[in-house]
Amino acid sequence: MKLFYCETLNPRKACAVARHLGSPVEFVRVNLAHGEHRRPDFLAINPNGRVPVLQDGDWSLWEANAIMCHLSDLAQSDLWPHDVRQVEVMRWLSWDAHHFTRPAGTLWFEHLIKPLIGMGPPDPALIASATAEFHSAAALLERHLAGRNHVVGDRLSIADFALASALPDAQASRIPLDPYPNIRRWHDSLLDIEAWRQPFPVSSAPLAA
Amino acid sequence: MKLFYCETLNPRKACAVARHLGSPVEFVRVNLAHGEHRRPDFLAINPNGRVPVLQDGDWSLWEANAIMCHLSDLAQSDLWPHDVRQVEVMRWLSWDAHHFTRPAGTLWFEHLIKPLIGMGPPDPALIASATAEFHSAAALLERHLAGRNHVVGDRLSIADFALASALPDAQASRIPLDPYPNIRRWHDSLLDIEAWRQPFPVSSAPLAA
Repeated sequence: MKLFYCETLNPRKACAVARHLGSPVEFVRVNLAHGEHRRPDFLAINPNGRVPVLQDGDWSLWEANAIMCHLSDLAQSDLWPHDVRQVEVMRWLSWDAHHFTRPAGTLWFEHLIKPLIGMGPPDPALIASATAEFHSAAALLERHLAGRNHVVGDRLSIADFALASALPDAQASRIPLDPYPNIRRWHDSLLDIEAWRQPFPVSSAPLAA
Repeated sequence: MKLFYCETLNPRKACAVARHLGSPVEFVRVNLAHGEHRRPDFLAINPNGRVPVLQDGDWSLWEANAIMCHLSDLAQSDLWPHDVRQVEVMRWLSWDAHHFTRPAGTLWFEHLIKPLIGMGPPDPALIASATAEFHSAAALLERHLAGRNHVVGDRLSIADFALASALPDAQASRIPLDPYPNIRRWHDSLLDIEAWRQPFPVSSAPLAA
């Protein structure tokens, strides 16, 4: 299997799971700056022209959350559980996509990526609305994480990785974590996991290189 | 169990599954116009202040996709499959949230809801960007649905309901379906399902009443 990635938010989730589980994948870096994601051979495995994609022979799987599930299933891991926790993981994956990493990802893009790729200055209106949305969502997650080390039950799941997507770059992205000690404690413990701290191949070129 | 809803996009998914499966739920309408979703008793079961929510004793489940999974599991239905199709359903749920119902929902809100609730005229810039995003996503779904009656495999799944969320009101929402005959054919067949055509209790008040 090949796991196509670059050093951005969604591939981070898929790569972290692959490394954490020791999944038998070859990591293949896609150079977005060179437009490799728009080449016909890449669009044949992901018509969205996005990373990550998992390719397994003639079959390919896109959407990072689905890739996390599939790699977990292949490894018979319970990162994607098949018991009563599954619906809880689904709750947080869905909430994350709509309410948490969505505004956090906007801050990451505006503050960190735009300058990197020469897309001009951050958009103040977007930053203001994303910051407000982030605070609203973070307040909820902060309360949920009180007394907890993981988002669902007492074990690591793909919900932790999904919710944490943008947090390793929180400072550079100006994602405001200061008011949220439970979120910081939870994410600090995720950073103790080598695969989360360093999800990409160590030979990987820096972002946008 | 109580299923709190109003006649909007996300509750439609949860209500349709509940009605399709004959789930033992009491439908409880939340009057958004009266601010019922911001009352402390409602925030106690969903701190997001949103519908749908499924309440089962002391436990409550929010996020429509998670509610669909849970109701399917309770009914031992394969609307949320537990075989090789599961990861495919996850792929489409995730893609839908990010790329399909997201812009479709913007068009629905700008064209249909704003006038209903007196929020002023639609925002032309938002409409332009959502329309472009919708076309890009719809072109992909159109190709996927060629020769298919359902999004995953040959059976109805929650992926069909998720992707169809905004389509019953496509005309009033000015969601441009004309160029997409496969999507129209697929959604026409969903509308043959009584629970999709009429997911809400028939006594339900019209939107925003």
